[in-house]
Amino acid sequence: MKETASGTPALCTRFHQASELIGRRWTGAIIFVLLQKTCRFATLRDAIPDITDRMLSERLQELEQEGLVERVVVPDTPVRVQYSLTKKGKALAEPINSLANWAEKYVPLQETKSKNRKR
Amino acid sequence: MKETASGTPALCTRFHQASELIGRRWTGAIIFVLLQKTCRFATLRDAIPDITDRMLSERLQELEQEGLVERVVVPDTPVRVQYSLTKKGKALAEPINSLANWAEKYVPLQETKSKNRKR
Repeated sequence: MKETASGTPALCTRFHQASELIGRRWTGAIIFVLLQKTCRFATLRDAIPDITDRMLSERLQELEQEGLVERVVVPDTPVRVQYSLTKKGKALAEPINSLANWAEKYVPLQETKSKNRKR
Repeated sequence: MKETASGTPALCTRFHQASELIGRRWTGAIIFVLLQKTCRFATLRDAIPDITDRMLSERLQELEQEGLVERVVVPDTPVRVQYSLTKKGKALAEPINSLANWAEKYVPLQETKSKNRKR
């Protein structure tokens, strides 16, 4: 951590960008699930409480654009579309697991909390 | 990671709550800065690009309510108000540093990106 001449702590720009990206609503959850296995859209949707098709679709597109998620079309009949993490996405395993450990220790279980989230 | 009977990966509820909390816009940045040192309001504001007084104030209140940040009034003349992390907040050093390492490796520097963020 660097300080500026005035003594104001400097915020790492790359960290700020990463936390704003990963912190987008649902994004952490999507990556958490994809770290476990490659998923079809419906599987992801079922794994994440309260997410709508539209939000999931939008988040997956963002994650593809950021190079974190790969969309693979499996030429089956009917074709199957699967989502998996890229190398860059898989590299999030450490921060994600570290946050999960923190949560295990410090976050009380309150099932309905996220529903009241303000934006 | 557990799977449900249907093969749908299970999302850890505590992790989901943690990522929705820490992921709120600016929150990661605030914690990142407070991990370096106890700060006054103005110092925090100066350290975080684009944050408004109102947003910083709202986020600090949320973080106080969640038990991550402590507001300390120093009985000086004039009184000084300082913000620091609690034990629970300081325990975020590991996930935050881990994400910072990831960002250092994978996030290109794009100064203006966060300004265009959609909500």
